[in-house]
Amino acid sequence: MSKLVIPAVDALDLSLSRKIQAAIDSKTKPLEALGELEHLAKKIALVQETLKPSAEGCRLLLFAADHGVAAAGVSAYPAEVTRQMVLNFLAGGAAANVFSANNNVDMTVVDAGVLGEPIIDSRLCVRRMGSGTKNFIEQPAMSNAIVKDALHAGILLGQECSESFVAFGEMGIGNTSAAALLVNKLKGYALKDIVGHGAGLNDSGVDRKLALLTQAAARTPPFLEPMAAMHEYGGFEIVMMVGAMIGSASCKKCLLIDGYIATAALIVAAELRPQISDYCIFTHRSAEPGHAIMLDGLGESGLLDMHLRLGEGTGAILAWPLVQCATRMLSDMASFSSGGVSTKV
Amino acid sequence: MSKLVIPAVDALDLSLSRKIQAAIDSKTKPLEALGELEHLAKKIALVQETLKPSAEGCRLLLFAADHGVAAAGVSAYPAEVTRQMVLNFLAGGAAANVFSANNNVDMTVVDAGVLGEPIIDSRLCVRRMGSGTKNFIEQPAMSNAIVKDALHAGILLGQECSESFVAFGEMGIGNTSAAALLVNKLKGYALKDIVGHGAGLNDSGVDRKLALLTQAAARTPPFLEPMAAMHEYGGFEIVMMVGAMIGSASCKKCLLIDGYIATAALIVAAELRPQISDYCIFTHRSAEPGHAIMLDGLGESGLLDMHLRLGEGTGAILAWPLVQCATRMLSDMASFSSGGVSTKV
Repeated sequence: MSKLVIPAVDALDLSLSRKIQAAIDSKTKPLEALGELEHLAKKIALVQETLKPSAEGCRLLLFAADHGVAAAGVSAYPAEVTRQMVLNFLAGGAAANVFSANNNVDMTVVDAGVLGEPIIDSRLCVRRMGSGTKNFIEQPAMSNAIVKDALHAGILLGQECSESFVAFGEMGIGNTSAAALLVNKLKGYALKDIVGHGAGLNDSGVDRKLALLTQAAARTPPFLEPMAAMHEYGGFEIVMMVGAMIGSASCKKCLLIDGYIATAALIVAAELRPQISDYCIFTHRSAEPGHAIMLDGLGESGLLDMHLRLGEGTGAILAWPLVQCATRMLSDMASFSSGGVSTKV
Repeated sequence: MSKLVIPAVDALDLSLSRKIQAAIDSKTKPLEALGELEHLAKKIALVQETLKPSAEGCRLLLFAADHGVAAAGVSAYPAEVTRQMVLNFLAGGAAANVFSANNNVDMTVVDAGVLGEPIIDSRLCVRRMGSGTKNFIEQPAMSNAIVKDALHAGILLGQECSESFVAFGEMGIGNTSAAALLVNKLKGYALKDIVGHGAGLNDSGVDRKLALLTQAAARTPPFLEPMAAMHEYGGFEIVMMVGAMIGSASCKKCLLIDGYIATAALIVAAELRPQISDYCIFTHRSAEPGHAIMLDGLGESGLLDMHLRLGEGTGAILAWPLVQCATRMLSDMASFSSGGVSTKV
């Protein structure tokens, strides 16, 4: 077991704030005419501590792992789909691949603990914490030592990315169940409000999922500390993502947060390092109803609202060109004076 | 004067519809998990009449012209800003340039009738219909002959684009006023509901603008035919855009519709060629409140909702990567069978 040191995530230095706003307001456009893009540009400039932020590179860290709870029947798909989708990612056939190729996002697929024998493929980043977690309806999903190992592995992956923007995606049959329990235990959101159709359960399937998760929740006290919550209900891919988010923010990168699972991971990360939210771009509002509850709790709305509910980081990849355009608005657009344009009457 | 022939815009052939839907549903993702992108992919496949649509190229036609009504004080900016912004477009400093460069959109800037002497620049596409329109508070904005000439010029520009996607943008101080009167006369929307802050009027400015436009509207009957409405209230850039939209759709290209002005132009175009809406992708919902009224009337919501209110086609440019990803989802993603992924339990 590695010795776990969770790095600091610094508060943003707000001393540039007024200068950044003045630079945005000087661009050749009516005041505030670029709406959310202007807020985004300001956030990015604050993270990068410059009036000329850069959006050259984005890497998607796509974490895959399996969940023991899947065997209890909480998902519309069998657990074997996690492994099949990892192979699909490696072959370039998934939505995340197609969107990443279009939007110039580089992708690292991480095996954090897919069920079965290790997948042998040189393109795969192997950080296996086991062959799927235990079924958390009956017992803790993973040991405390594995929580620390997974966080540590994630922190290193986040720190090692050379890109200044990191997007977070996941694949793991059953992981909306794990995510729901994590935010239930950390934030107190009622399971009935945050348990949804996941990858495509029908209504009776949702009822069954809710009953099973209620049973799982009853095993532990109503509120848990983040390390304990991950021990009881975490998934390897979620815990590693928590670490990677903290690792990335500790190096002053911007974090592109995808949907339900990634936002749940960010909520866990923010319990450990509260300043991390300042580094986050919430890229979309998922069709999974619990996601809106999480975003509302964070005071965020999400850039896109296109009824996506796929995961894999797809929402974050789709939003990347918006993030780039916001950044380049600040860095590359002419000002009224440099562009020779008259200001208001 | 050219003899005006408005080309036909064919109804979509829906015979492929079921096959397209089956292809979308076969992709390695839960059913409907890509939300709006799936509807978009279907529309594009229907326009291109293929199960493997292509999204290689997009051209922005950016029409600029001036409005006599600007002298009456309906805008926060002086009319000279239209010309200055054309120069800014040519120099690459505007938001439309920066976003187009990021998103690989090619841009054609069209002088449809900017106030003053012609701008001499080989990069400018010159289709001048005059030096700004007349002040439509007192008299028709342009002659019937000029309406036809502007439509004709636009139709040719739309037909001549080699790209299969055409985005429409505009620059013209005062053009929210022209757009408001056009949709008022064609659709009966109350001016008080569709007249807004434009490029940045304060509240008393909006009151003044509303009073002036009410006066202008009183000059003519409550409802007008589209050719008459353009004659009375059109702008050169708006009328030419109407033509370009029809020209593009007549060649089975997809149209990327921007905000308030472009949607008003589309509403005029749809009066002339009702099938044109089937070719349109409504790229965003503007912060200008009247735009939501127009979109609702069309039964559309807009892909992005980021409180944009800039024009220049910026919303359409920002949405282009989403359009590309939707197209490539259908053309490039693996299916459950080709990707070796299990379907639902």
